[in-house]
Amino acid sequence: MRRYSPVDFTRVSLTGPFWSERLETVLTRTVPSQYKKLDENGILESLDLKDPPPPLRVPFNDQGFTMQYFWDSDIGKWIEAAGYALRHRRDAEIERQVDEIVDKLEAAQMPDGYLNLWYQGHEIENRWTNLRDRHELYNIGHLLEGAIAYYQATGKRKFLEVMERSLDHIRSTFGTGPDQKRGYPGHQEIEIALIRLYQLTGERKQLDLAAYFIDERGREPHYFDEEAIARGDDPTKYHFFNSGNYEYGQAHKPVREQDKVVGHAVRAMYMYTAMADLAAELDDDSLRHACEVLWKDVTTTRMYVTGGFGPSASNEGFTTDYDLPNDTAYCETCASIAFVFWAQRMLNLDLDGQYAEAMELALYNGVLSGLSRDGELYFYENKLDSDGSHRRWPWHPCPCCTMNVSRLVASVSGYFYSVGPGAIAVNLYGGNSAELELDGRRIRIEEQSNYPWSGKIKVSVHPDGHGVFALKLRIPDWARDGVATLNGNPVDVPGQLQNGYLVIERDWIEGDVVELDLPMTPRRIYANPKVKMDRHRVALARGPLVYCAEQVDNETPVPDLILSRDAAITETNRSDLFDGIVSLTAPAKSIGSDDWGLDLYRTTPPTPADTTLTAIPYYLWANRDAGPMQVWIREG
Amino acid sequence: MRRYSPVDFTRVSLTGPFWSERLETVLTRTVPSQYKKLDENGILESLDLKDPPPPLRVPFNDQGFTMQYFWDSDIGKWIEAAGYALRHRRDAEIERQVDEIVDKLEAAQMPDGYLNLWYQGHEIENRWTNLRDRHELYNIGHLLEGAIAYYQATGKRKFLEVMERSLDHIRSTFGTGPDQKRGYPGHQEIEIALIRLYQLTGERKQLDLAAYFIDERGREPHYFDEEAIARGDDPTKYHFFNSGNYEYGQAHKPVREQDKVVGHAVRAMYMYTAMADLAAELDDDSLRHACEVLWKDVTTTRMYVTGGFGPSASNEGFTTDYDLPNDTAYCETCASIAFVFWAQRMLNLDLDGQYAEAMELALYNGVLSGLSRDGELYFYENKLDSDGSHRRWPWHPCPCCTMNVSRLVASVSGYFYSVGPGAIAVNLYGGNSAELELDGRRIRIEEQSNYPWSGKIKVSVHPDGHGVFALKLRIPDWARDGVATLNGNPVDVPGQLQNGYLVIERDWIEGDVVELDLPMTPRRIYANPKVKMDRHRVALARGPLVYCAEQVDNETPVPDLILSRDAAITETNRSDLFDGIVSLTAPAKSIGSDDWGLDLYRTTPPTPADTTLTAIPYYLWANRDAGPMQVWIREG
Repeated sequence: MRRYSPVDFTRVSLTGPFWSERLETVLTRTVPSQYKKLDENGILESLDLKDPPPPLRVPFNDQGFTMQYFWDSDIGKWIEAAGYALRHRRDAEIERQVDEIVDKLEAAQMPDGYLNLWYQGHEIENRWTNLRDRHELYNIGHLLEGAIAYYQATGKRKFLEVMERSLDHIRSTFGTGPDQKRGYPGHQEIEIALIRLYQLTGERKQLDLAAYFIDERGREPHYFDEEAIARGDDPTKYHFFNSGNYEYGQAHKPVREQDKVVGHAVRAMYMYTAMADLAAELDDDSLRHACEVLWKDVTTTRMYVTGGFGPSASNEGFTTDYDLPNDTAYCETCASIAFVFWAQRMLNLDLDGQYAEAMELALYNGVLSGLSRDGELYFYENKLDSDGSHRRWPWHPCPCCTMNVSRLVASVSGYFYSVGPGAIAVNLYGGNSAELELDGRRIRIEEQSNYPWSGKIKVSVHPDGHGVFALKLRIPDWARDGVATLNGNPVDVPGQLQNGYLVIERDWIEGDVVELDLPMTPRRIYANPKVKMDRHRVALARGPLVYCAEQVDNETPVPDLILSRDAAITETNRSDLFDGIVSLTAPAKSIGSDDWGLDLYRTTPPTPADTTLTAIPYYLWANRDAGPMQVWIREG
Repeated sequence: MRRYSPVDFTRVSLTGPFWSERLETVLTRTVPSQYKKLDENGILESLDLKDPPPPLRVPFNDQGFTMQYFWDSDIGKWIEAAGYALRHRRDAEIERQVDEIVDKLEAAQMPDGYLNLWYQGHEIENRWTNLRDRHELYNIGHLLEGAIAYYQATGKRKFLEVMERSLDHIRSTFGTGPDQKRGYPGHQEIEIALIRLYQLTGERKQLDLAAYFIDERGREPHYFDEEAIARGDDPTKYHFFNSGNYEYGQAHKPVREQDKVVGHAVRAMYMYTAMADLAAELDDDSLRHACEVLWKDVTTTRMYVTGGFGPSASNEGFTTDYDLPNDTAYCETCASIAFVFWAQRMLNLDLDGQYAEAMELALYNGVLSGLSRDGELYFYENKLDSDGSHRRWPWHPCPCCTMNVSRLVASVSGYFYSVGPGAIAVNLYGGNSAELELDGRRIRIEEQSNYPWSGKIKVSVHPDGHGVFALKLRIPDWARDGVATLNGNPVDVPGQLQNGYLVIERDWIEGDVVELDLPMTPRRIYANPKVKMDRHRVALARGPLVYCAEQVDNETPVPDLILSRDAAITETNRSDLFDGIVSLTAPAKSIGSDDWGLDLYRTTPPTPADTTLTAIPYYLWANRDAGPMQVWIREG
């Protein structure tokens, strides 16, 4: 069913300033510093199984849960990011670090293939007794993704072989056979990893195991009930995070019957990603349909304007339709990252631009906000309104978001293109040089642009030989007035628009040039009034970037700002800010007038004072002095 | 220092429809039904000291605290309300009920005078070891007020004598003498009761004990620290309500040094009431000054527009300046009642109309909202914004507010007048017939009016004999355009206005008539923009009544209503609602437009639809179908 395929990120070299800066930061600062933090925070220490185990680094919480249960995944995720870094450029020190970890994992692995540092270090007798809460399969998923990336970067097979033994053990333990447990992960992730392994090796058994986990999920009798009874627990008591239900892990019913996006946001998005992958690999219309229903649900009722997901800290996830509070928004960085994964899979099913549009939104806003300018500080929660107390942190007891953002940025160029039958699609913009393959032909695409600061994009095509193919250039929703030329001659953009892509099909020859001019006019965004928190408020955006008012740029206290509906919004090139950005300014009012004296109440309304509003891209906030920030600004 | 005195409520017969309805409801329904609820909920059972004690009716909370600690106070408060009811009309059944309680209290009292049903029933060995948290003195205060009221109603002295023995015991236990504990109540109240006893009996020792409690409060070394150490507790751990500080009970420093209204709102207001009483009785300028500073603080930074106090449930009290959230407002009914007590004391110091203005506001709004139309349901918390889930309850594990509202309404006519040297002041309006004494003369005042529904007030004066005196008629702030006539001839209201009162001094003769016409034009009230929760919102008021939009009167969901700044507000006589009220209506908009389809975000703003807003007096809400309610309505 998948008609388009992604392009391996190593085929696309980033040359534009925006993404090459982020990529360099991640390669030179984030990935190396993360190894140090894994070390300093005791995560690497867990590789040395000791008897008795050292004291817990992260104590049990009041639910009897420690973050150490999922440290294996953090190791796996760092190796994945490191693998991507090595594919950009080999680095002996990083390889030494990974090799040392892999040797320890190999040494730790049990003869039957079982591998889990927590259980092996603390309570091996309880292995595989609590899939619901304990992340054993999730951990294997992330380790497997790390093994794949490291193999692809170095050709070294040891880690992959460790993981294949582990998978064989899992395959013998779980399944529908008479001596097997019908279990599946409490926290989805391994499904994605198994499909990636299948795509690497072509081994059907890996795909089948992924499909088993997805198909079995939420079936009755409920496995999580059965395993709870088996270990002497009351299955009606679902302890962790007080969620008290199986919606938390999207295991409340079979996945094909799910039509509402519920529960823990990252689990949800990882599961939808795997479902979309399986829909493509297995040509499974029922999975595809379920994905489409869930996509529509989340994007029409439960998505922040920044491409953030999950309003609630208590379940790290979803609540009710249109419940999108700004100051208490959870919006875990991982959720936006996982949404990018899902969106890419949906996009490649049939290249519907809505998926690329949402993918770009999440990438430039909800994802990038998770990493500081210097590449060494993080947001776990990406709020849309802050009183100034929400700041980036250098590490976290649950460091999942840190390595998630590095693995995505390190491989971001893989999201720029899709290749399908007779077509190359440009999903994302930004200067790059891409060596693509289409139906056996090599085609080089060169893009020059300063996107997203500028909407001017020059794409030159360098095909190897002759033959007709379509170049499909995405025209974002906000750029429907965009114009294009082919070798200087106007192109009928509206007439050639298909599913959000400008389609130019021809026998491309060396040096053909398409130039796009996507209008970057600042725009106002309004939320459906059912989103009560955003009523009487407006968000500003320019191109794919959502903006915010941060205190450091504004004389008026940010919560006091009022933007009138007809105020002109001016773009300013601020070469002095960061590496040069476009900021937005507008005449505004401040409600915090000072003519009230001691009155607490009076019969005459406040008289707002004139002021100026300045907004910067949301992803850049909290890189300077601490202060309030708002995405949704009062309009009046 | 007190230049004015209140008038005993039995001297003022309420004849106007507004207050006579509330009074009758309290006398015929509230007071009798409260006895039944005291009985049904086991509170009266605690009078029968049993060994072993029966199981707790209200279990210990997670702080190790049970509401049963203060059930004595509920008994005392009910007797006080019952005593007021008996002063309106004797009732053999109520007297029988009170007498039975008094007999049991007398039987329970220990030989040394100690009386506390909790400690005597459960842990007598621990008496007087935790004044900070355990309400022994608070309970005695309320019992004493009950004893005074019952004596005044019936002439029966038994209860008063029980309480006098109890006070003698307290007086010997606490004080500055060498063998005494320098203790004072954790929850203030007994001070007010002692001053009332002094005013009844003239015994200086009662006033001195009140003054001791006030003077000792907050001194170092801190008594609450010392008693905590003595009972083996860590004084730095202040358990109850997690307040963790002595601000909670206004014991953080000596009362004369306090300049911010902090902590538990009811404790605060009871203390200020006693301080103002003592300022008058002892001619104590330092206490008066402290009261004035605290009054200014609360009314300019920490008072709800309804005359509610205390935004926070966690400490049942105050937080920070301008922190007045509406949907989470605590605004305990008791706090507004206690504020009325304080305001009356401040008013009588020198008849400054600001105190009467605030007293009237709290009385008509924050207090009356606490009692249902039928007199048998209550609000403990008086929110200013509800999603529909906040409803009145028939009883409460901490039933303090129930009997507090009955004792105030049963004696409300005592707040209408003040009498000072050569002057009678009319503080509150509403038809009544008052038999007053001024400098030895009897003067009858008859007021005819349908206040607060109408601003037309006819006051006729019937003096006994001749002599000049001033009649002072309060002109509320919202009625500064009000007009007046004396025997049909215009009076120069602005010219004769002193401290918010229209002063007419003359040799009044039988049948002199003053007619006031106070304009009842609906008005808009705005909050200082520092109150962030009320920004871009407006409250409506008419006369002393604050209004609210309740769902049952509005087709548009209340949270969707937008009132434009220039919309005309129309008054409607609604004889069909309750006993007949004035409602307010205005053309308005509804933001909940239905033209959004599935869009979650878009670049065109919502287009509000036309609708009508209907508002009713706040005190009447939640007497019909459940639904959302807002005092502060979006203005735009």
